Amino acid sequence: MATGKINVSVENIFPLIKKFLYSDHEIFLRELISNGTDATLKLKHLAAIGEAKVEYGHPIIEVKVDKENKKIHITDQGIGMTEEEVKKYINDIAFSGAEEFLNKYEDGAKDSGIIGHFGLGFYSAFMVAEKVEILTKSYKEDSEAVHWSCDGSPNFTLKKGKKKNRGTEIILHIAEDSTEFLEDNRITTLLRKYNKFMPIPIKFGMKTETLPKPEDAKKEDKAPTKEVDNIINNPNPAWTKQPADLEDTDYKEFYRELYPMQFEDPLFHIHLNVDYPFNLTGILYFPKLTNDLNIQKDKIQLYQNQVFVTDNVEGIVPEFLTMLRGVIDSPDIPLNVSRSYLQADGAVKKIASYITRKVADKLNSLVKDNREDYEKKWNDIKIVIEYGMLSEDKFFEKSDKFALYPTVDGKYFTFDELKEKIKSNQTDKDEKLVILYASDKEAQHSYIEAAKAKGYEVLLLDSPIIGHLIQKLEGSKEKISFARVDADPIDILIKKEDTAISKLSEEEKDRLKANLEEAIENKSYTVQLEAMDSDASPFIITEPEFMRRMKEMQRTGGGGIMGMGSMPEMYNLVVNTNHELVGEILNTKTAKKRERLINQSVDLARLSKGLLKGKELTNFIKRSYEMVK
Amino acid sequence: MATGKINVSVENIFPLIKKFLYSDHEIFLRELISNGTDATLKLKHLAAIGEAKVEYGHPIIEVKVDKENKKIHITDQGIGMTEEEVKKYINDIAFSGAEEFLNKYEDGAKDSGIIGHFGLGFYSAFMVAEKVEILTKSYKEDSEAVHWSCDGSPNFTLKKGKKKNRGTEIILHIAEDSTEFLEDNRITTLLRKYNKFMPIPIKFGMKTETLPKPEDAKKEDKAPTKEVDNIINNPNPAWTKQPADLEDTDYKEFYRELYPMQFEDPLFHIHLNVDYPFNLTGILYFPKLTNDLNIQKDKIQLYQNQVFVTDNVEGIVPEFLTMLRGVIDSPDIPLNVSRSYLQADGAVKKIASYITRKVADKLNSLVKDNREDYEKKWNDIKIVIEYGMLSEDKFFEKSDKFALYPTVDGKYFTFDELKEKIKSNQTDKDEKLVILYASDKEAQHSYIEAAKAKGYEVLLLDSPIIGHLIQKLEGSKEKISFARVDADPIDILIKKEDTAISKLSEEEKDRLKANLEEAIENKSYTVQLEAMDSDASPFIITEPEFMRRMKEMQRTGGGGIMGMGSMPEMYNLVVNTNHELVGEILNTKTAKKRERLINQSVDLARLSKGLLKGKELTNFIKRSYEMVK
Repeated sequence: MATGKINVSVENIFPLIKKFLYSDHEIFLRELISNGTDATLKLKHLAAIGEAKVEYGHPIIEVKVDKENKKIHITDQGIGMTEEEVKKYINDIAFSGAEEFLNKYEDGAKDSGIIGHFGLGFYSAFMVAEKVEILTKSYKEDSEAVHWSCDGSPNFTLKKGKKKNRGTEIILHIAEDSTEFLEDNRITTLLRKYNKFMPIPIKFGMKTETLPKPEDAKKEDKAPTKEVDNIINNPNPAWTKQPADLEDTDYKEFYRELYPMQFEDPLFHIHLNVDYPFNLTGILYFPKLTNDLNIQKDKIQLYQNQVFVTDNVEGIVPEFLTMLRGVIDSPDIPLNVSRSYLQADGAVKKIASYITRKVADKLNSLVKDNREDYEKKWNDIKIVIEYGMLSEDKFFEKSDKFALYPTVDGKYFTFDELKEKIKSNQTDKDEKLVILYASDKEAQHSYIEAAKAKGYEVLLLDSPIIGHLIQKLEGSKEKISFARVDADPIDILIKKEDTAISKLSEEEKDRLKANLEEAIENKSYTVQLEAMDSDASPFIITEPEFMRRMKEMQRTGGGGIMGMGSMPEMYNLVVNTNHELVGEILNTKTAKKRERLINQSVDLARLSKGLLKGKELTNFIKRSYEMVK
Repeated sequence: MATGKINVSVENIFPLIKKFLYSDHEIFLRELISNGTDATLKLKHLAAIGEAKVEYGHPIIEVKVDKENKKIHITDQGIGMTEEEVKKYINDIAFSGAEEFLNKYEDGAKDSGIIGHFGLGFYSAFMVAEKVEILTKSYKEDSEAVHWSCDGSPNFTLKKGKKKNRGTEIILHIAEDSTEFLEDNRITTLLRKYNKFMPIPIKFGMKTETLPKPEDAKKEDKAPTKEVDNIINNPNPAWTKQPADLEDTDYKEFYRELYPMQFEDPLFHIHLNVDYPFNLTGILYFPKLTNDLNIQKDKIQLYQNQVFVTDNVEGIVPEFLTMLRGVIDSPDIPLNVSRSYLQADGAVKKIASYITRKVADKLNSLVKDNREDYEKKWNDIKIVIEYGMLSEDKFFEKSDKFALYPTVDGKYFTFDELKEKIKSNQTDKDEKLVILYASDKEAQHSYIEAAKAKGYEVLLLDSPIIGHLIQKLEGSKEKISFARVDADPIDILIKKEDTAISKLSEEEKDRLKANLEEAIENKSYTVQLEAMDSDASPFIITEPEFMRRMKEMQRTGGGGIMGMGSMPEMYNLVVNTNHELVGEILNTKTAKKRERLINQSVDLARLSKGLLKGKELTNFIKRSYEMVK
């Protein structure tokens, strides 16, 4: 028997790093700037605890593109490295300097926001560079500058350097297949994407002091003209500050910083700030959702210690909140793992439920503190809230306090308020509270009017998922039912007495029914005679609630009854036996005249329900023009 | 100056492999079965060229789950390894056995479909196992079995083994955090997902001979009961065969094998088969697209040498074809790289344009060979084709042959056929060919009728992106323009004479216009007097083509005129000065009566255009019931 250690040879690993370390080659710039940031923050920490005898000052990181010589320089003013440190941190792959540092300095260092994790970041340089140089000088007293160089072979040379100042300069000799990164525009785009909020100022591009903007000219009157650095980042973004230190305008300004193409203010924000049992900061915004799909691309951004990671927060943020905007910053979210793994991860689950709770809290406080303003915003936020009520049971439980039910007249009720308002008038003979709603104020206008004439409140529920939500509400509350105003004549929707007196005799009813069924071409209507108020409509087309709802639910996915989505619509033709016109029809002896009366009446009923279309509508209009003349 | 080689230590690399080698831990099974497949195919190749003096037989790969002892066994009957080979291929990470094999045996080996690429696949075992054993025996004569074992520390032991048969058995001692993989269901799901079409039979699960299904009983009457292996894969999927060897039913059967939940047959298929300048096989299906979003999840699957890789083919398949279904198998598509990299990759670009060309060729042959059938399918495939015409210029150029333009009467024309059909009747006085269309047969019925009364053809173009396509067609063809039937009165849409005689004098026209503007409440209509046929409609609401199209294009994204999407609709009220009713209105002296005439007429015109809604419709209906009585 032999024992040994698995061996890994650098010649075999290096090509893998070059090709597959990250799926996006552009990541190299983020990684190298992260390293520079770490080096600077380490110095800050050491200076603060007195271990580094240097003046920390106001260090920056500078990025320079030398297109002519195909080089990119990334220079920091951080702790730098001694020869020993280069050997240790650079010559050995996968030795994480950051981890060792964190272990050594423990808690204080964790707060200082150091980014590095596996020490592989530096090697991402080889994804775009055929040769990489490091010029570095340690902050330590009397340390000598070092010059490291490697052509990716993976052989390196290490010699004394000429660097005068403390810090590290990385020089990338860009490879032929990566010359895109020598374009200023490309680098600017990358810096804006990944480094916009990193904690150390990053300088890039031409100095602008030769081109002062007109609006800046005045400000600078006070001080003599000085060099204006092109700092491309905001090292202190709003989410890193305490909520108490921020005004509403600061949040709005930060929103615009995040989404420069958004011209509309967000509706409100939620500041996230927790450090136990996980570390998470961030600001979420409820945007005014529009139909413009381009704008939907502005999504929640995920950062780790102010470094942009992704704008795909699926699995981290509960699905119903992915329509929001803003940032989340947490070092505790595992990266480079699959979404299914993320969703199973305990820490991530806790983060998701923390965010849900904070959103519910915010909605609670908004509805309490400024009801009027909240009502104005309801239409813009309802999709998010309704979807949350459907998909997250904990959110549903809390939603009674902040979910609003608007009426067609522009009033807004919470569920309890609504119940209180309507219980005396809209409870039917079986003690059931009937909540009336419309999905379209225009299309269901005549039905809404009929309900309002009885003094009933009619909700306006027009979200695509409302069927599912209604179903859930009916299942979770006692003795209520929802009914759309066109599901039945209003007297039947909320039935208060068992018997209604019909002006017609049984014989007359039978004759009427026969007449009707003979006259109407379209046999798909079920004729239903009802004794209603004489001033209610003579003819009404209704669409039974249960069938319609099941079909709608099936169409919007999940729920309903399987296969129902594609079934044809079914309608009833309700005839008010107490209406004058119906009596007239019954008394018309000429079959042809009677038929014309019936058809024009049924056409009007269908028009009212939006069912008169195409050829039938054209014929109706032609007939009507004749009648006008 | 010092020189040296960058060092990589296995202690540092191993944790990375465990956590980050693949984002999905479940990949381990695919990798290990791929290794087993490679080992078997290598043996097949060596036996075929006479280098291996063994009978190849009918080797399988077997997967066994030993839940009690927390182990998974994966056993192949391939070439196996000698002690030397274990040292070489296993003990050194990132040494690609497959690559070396391919280099050695060159062309023949390439055809044998060997999968392995970087030799890292084996180590994926450590993502789920705390300990891994290899029991292996080489096919070589007199070779001794070897037993390798490693607890991931990364120390290994290597000793003589007891394995009797040629091949390799991998034993995974599943780690605490991965016990999900000890569930039969989980393994079955994984095998079905990744290994469904791998070229060596894979056996998994209990033997079923003790549980014969009733329908199998009869079949087995013929032969005495024998062991029924649970082979979970189809080693010879349709796409690996020659098109000439397949019937239409074979393609349909394979479709069902790919998508067991699809009950509808695909409309047609395209067999892809090319080996220069890249290697690609596959079958694409045009499905009957439905609104059921769940079914949209059945996407094109990407394989490499019959191993499932992903069902995200974005960047590989042209975007307009991602609505299709089927498989693509190509070893030439780089994996683990970013989508932006993929899109820039030359080989991938060629693959995308090859697929586009094949789809165009197929459509050409369908339209030529069976026009009637193609017309029947048009409605189901038009979205794909129209989107392709918009997004791929090369596809657009070819589309004249297969893009159809259906009429409201159910006829289908190619563009040239349409031109030929309508040029004599629909060319206007400026020599421009006017192509009339409707977007909704029902809603635009009266307008369509007016056009048909003139003998014009009216196309039915109802795709959401049609505005963009019309714009592109107008830009690429000479002297044509599209106009929706409700964009103007039909006599003006295709103007044939410059002057039309009006029955009204100038004075009467001015008076009529004043009367109309006074009467109509809704000031948003622009009144337009036109001298038309006396039997054309007296009042027509029109919506000018240009404005409407720009607004629609803006709404569906891209194109149109910025900001127009949210502008209000603009309509003209066209009054036919030659209609009897209009003369009557002019001659009505009582202002009130005149106003009622005008209002009822305008309401009918609005009804015809679908603009009479809500309260106005309810009032119109009430008024009309009165008139019925």
